[in-house]
Amino acid sequence: MDFQSCFPVWEQLTVAQRERVLSGLLRRHVEKGTVLHNGSMDCTGLMLVESGQLRAYILSDEGREITIYRLFDRDICLFSASCIMRSIQFDVTIETEKDTDLWLIPAEIYRQLMTESAPVSNYTNEIMAARFSEVMWLMEQVMWKSMDRRVAAFLLEESAIEGTDRLRITHEAIANHLGTHREVVTRMLRYFQNEGMVKLSRGAVDITDSGRLEALERA
Amino acid sequence: MDFQSCFPVWEQLTVAQRERVLSGLLRRHVEKGTVLHNGSMDCTGLMLVESGQLRAYILSDEGREITIYRLFDRDICLFSASCIMRSIQFDVTIETEKDTDLWLIPAEIYRQLMTESAPVSNYTNEIMAARFSEVMWLMEQVMWKSMDRRVAAFLLEESAIEGTDRLRITHEAIANHLGTHREVVTRMLRYFQNEGMVKLSRGAVDITDSGRLEALERA
Repeated sequence: MDFQSCFPVWEQLTVAQRERVLSGLLRRHVEKGTVLHNGSMDCTGLMLVESGQLRAYILSDEGREITIYRLFDRDICLFSASCIMRSIQFDVTIETEKDTDLWLIPAEIYRQLMTESAPVSNYTNEIMAARFSEVMWLMEQVMWKSMDRRVAAFLLEESAIEGTDRLRITHEAIANHLGTHREVVTRMLRYFQNEGMVKLSRGAVDITDSGRLEALERA
Repeated sequence: MDFQSCFPVWEQLTVAQRERVLSGLLRRHVEKGTVLHNGSMDCTGLMLVESGQLRAYILSDEGREITIYRLFDRDICLFSASCIMRSIQFDVTIETEKDTDLWLIPAEIYRQLMTESAPVSNYTNEIMAARFSEVMWLMEQVMWKSMDRRVAAFLLEESAIEGTDRLRITHEAIANHLGTHREVVTRMLRYFQNEGMVKLSRGAVDITDSGRLEALERA
């Protein structure tokens, strides 16, 4: 896969703009578990995921986390370049959940592209609207959905991402995705186990009845 | 106040674009309590508030509400034109909280402007980033702050907006802003009253010790 075919507005750039992007473009291989962007502390630039998996989350003063969205192959990470828009007044942390290969367009180059090019700016709008939509979905989950439905939804999502019913994940990690405490997750998973929907073992959760988890999620 | 001085990118439009905007521009006087935009049901266009007050909120299936932000004089309402970006995949309801005068740029005209003009598209980006920031702030409140701090913050915000310590608002309305139940708000306000921070009467909440409410909010 090359950069040009992954960057959707490539065809709409002028020759000079293309040259500028290519001359500044960086390629990175990042190991799983690396923090790529840390709130307002840095402004690396726009990241384009070639392959891998990123997680964006927010942190409370007490160190609690909640995952706000994830990025996969060919997704764009806008908030690692949040300095290019002064109205972005919130801090997101981005870390790799799997070994990841990505391209990086430095913030200054992307800022200039946006200033010049309506297609690039409109494309950026669409990315932000997509992330905004994910956060609004999450807000609705947090506000209106009970924790049992959120845990069920998370297990099913993980299973779909990993392509397996055996999830190698700790209760602590699930709690960090959902913005709750480990004890709450452990209690919920034990209830699911009693109901025959999952089987718990050291460091793993096996989904044994995905149909019932799905029914719970939709309930 | 005229439209040109309220619309920040006016100076960056071409003569032809200005004519197009002015020829399509609508002016509306809307009474307090009117629903201006209802989720994905309509796509009126971009609204620019001349004077008044709007509230944007989301609704649960059961009819519970939570206010996501408010708009005041010279603010732009983007989500009443949400159809212009296909990646906006959430429904917001917008209603007037006070009698409001506004200008309306029809969605089709605004969409065309964004396609042509990098300044208009970048301006739209900044509006969306500002709203996104408000929603992220709210998400943090909902996730990490206890309800007593959220009620205290709401009372102080209302008092600042209205310029008075006498708030004419029902417990039901406060619950709808905060996405909770009336009983929760009533219990909290009675606790605040016992502590001498507010005084409750029929249809009103008087703030009697804003210093302590502020201390609670910051706690």
